[in-house]
Amino acid sequence: MDLAAAVLEGNRLALARCLTQIENGTLEGRDALNRLFPNTGHAHLIGVTGAPGTGKSSLVNQLARYYRQPGSLENSTRSRPLRIGIVAIDPTSPFTGGAILGDRVRMRDLAGDSGVFIRSMATRGSLGGLAHATAGVVQVMDAAGFEVILIETVGAGQAEVDIARLAHTTLVVEAPGLGDEIQAIKAGILEIADILVINKSDQPGAEATERALRSMLQLAHPVPHIFQHHGHLEIVPASHLESGNKTLWVPPLQRTVATEGVGIVELVSVIERHYQFLQDTGEWQQREQARLQSELNIILQETLVDRWRSTISEKRYNDVLDSLVSRDLSPWQAVETLLDGDLE
Amino acid sequence: MDLAAAVLEGNRLALARCLTQIENGTLEGRDALNRLFPNTGHAHLIGVTGAPGTGKSSLVNQLARYYRQPGSLENSTRSRPLRIGIVAIDPTSPFTGGAILGDRVRMRDLAGDSGVFIRSMATRGSLGGLAHATAGVVQVMDAAGFEVILIETVGAGQAEVDIARLAHTTLVVEAPGLGDEIQAIKAGILEIADILVINKSDQPGAEATERALRSMLQLAHPVPHIFQHHGHLEIVPASHLESGNKTLWVPPLQRTVATEGVGIVELVSVIERHYQFLQDTGEWQQREQARLQSELNIILQETLVDRWRSTISEKRYNDVLDSLVSRDLSPWQAVETLLDGDLE
Repeated sequence: MDLAAAVLEGNRLALARCLTQIENGTLEGRDALNRLFPNTGHAHLIGVTGAPGTGKSSLVNQLARYYRQPGSLENSTRSRPLRIGIVAIDPTSPFTGGAILGDRVRMRDLAGDSGVFIRSMATRGSLGGLAHATAGVVQVMDAAGFEVILIETVGAGQAEVDIARLAHTTLVVEAPGLGDEIQAIKAGILEIADILVINKSDQPGAEATERALRSMLQLAHPVPHIFQHHGHLEIVPASHLESGNKTLWVPPLQRTVATEGVGIVELVSVIERHYQFLQDTGEWQQREQARLQSELNIILQETLVDRWRSTISEKRYNDVLDSLVSRDLSPWQAVETLLDGDLE
Repeated sequence: MDLAAAVLEGNRLALARCLTQIENGTLEGRDALNRLFPNTGHAHLIGVTGAPGTGKSSLVNQLARYYRQPGSLENSTRSRPLRIGIVAIDPTSPFTGGAILGDRVRMRDLAGDSGVFIRSMATRGSLGGLAHATAGVVQVMDAAGFEVILIETVGAGQAEVDIARLAHTTLVVEAPGLGDEIQAIKAGILEIADILVINKSDQPGAEATERALRSMLQLAHPVPHIFQHHGHLEIVPASHLESGNKTLWVPPLQRTVATEGVGIVELVSVIERHYQFLQDTGEWQQREQARLQSELNIILQETLVDRWRSTISEKRYNDVLDSLVSRDLSPWQAVETLLDGDLE
């Protein structure tokens, strides 16, 4: 079977198989990706990240369901239904067995719709490796014609942020009552937000969460904006920024209650406004380039290491490692010895 | 000034300066580390990780204060006071300005004690880079004679886990009422725990948190343990595992109320028991080797990439990047072109 051709024809079994090959880093997967790559670059990649317990999975499901209904889309040149891919990244422990709970909910909601394809990925080995595998998975879905790809990451660490950076539009999800808001903000995910979502906004503390987020946003995006324009300082009023200004995007804040479907229409409208912003300002192209360059550098790095490792003997590597462990060589000295040392 | 010599003499200003050089990745820092490295390998590295809001900073402060008091240590060959280093890893946003709140508390508690040295590190650039810089910072403190180094990471992502893996003993801190326990467990940090701490255990929900953790632990470490021993299956009762067995460590669970100092003596006793376990089983040496090998591989990788980049022109790299962005080359094809392509 020609895997890439079958994927392009819309064969779901071939798609699933191809994604497995990509995840496992096989040569078959790489060959398929090489064939599929010219068909990529069309999907709108939407990252959804935030701390555990904020209800990201429900939100992703609701977004998918809404995009699947026929109808026009506010603030957009696109019209529904759109074909939806979902990639759920799950930094799962080996013994808890993965995104099973979330997946059951998903399956019930979205099963049987051929316009939706769901893929869960668990962390195996390094998270750098996961971000890399995710890039490949997203590219295959993109080539297979999924027009919106929702990338959901559990957790709020830097590595999840790196995965979210794959996206064109990043939603950071908060929820009331998850402890000190300052803590969440310290986790460093606010500055990657294109859109802030306060989910579970019917719960106590939603007002306080919104206030805290607004004041943090104000620190990040002082309003009115003062910036240099043709050599003099220019003051842009907040209203201008929020509505018409084409070159600046101030992350809007949207309340939702995903389990009830509240705020989903409004959230999609904001997402579509961001999609238009990316298109109109050339930011879309810039993000594409940054993403591909980052991927190029990661593969370069891996390949250089693999090639180097094939040139030295296991014994030599272990001898140097022994000198490191016995503190006869520092890590930097060990590397110099391996790369430049006498090979005898 | 000879930086390394000054650090070894106990000059705190030199130590601070040396750590800055390490963090900034300067040649001066690297030279100092090369000189200091033979003096490393003595400190007990204790990682403290867990979700935001669990009270890790207070816990770290209390541990430091307790280790600083004179007296004997239960379950240990060491006696107090021990010299304490604290490394606080803070995935800070550029605009919130860092671990300021936590640091103020620390300063009040521990200021003026020359047996304590505190260093906050913020994420700048990649978190892989941060783990690497942290390794260097810990090595310098180790060489400077700090006998216990507490490495505190904010957040619960895989990258924080990677930093915690630097440690000999890893404490995973939970607290009641931070949402669904299953979520915290899914974040994949439980399996790196040598010791589980339920902090804020005077708050409602502590019982439920403890029950949830115990049942997860039972999944991870089924009790009684059945394992192969000299060719036949052997059943080890839980009591044996918890007390006398030298080759298996079942993560104990300790309740604390760090702000009140409750449970700290008991927690230190458990930490010291783990320290003895590491020494008695040879696990200490194994963890040292794994850590140094990982550091060796990271520096190797960086150096290989730097050297390769110095061999090709900016123009050639950009030409290939352009072909990637225009989808004429896939990422893998782009790498092949860069490494093997005709240089004309």
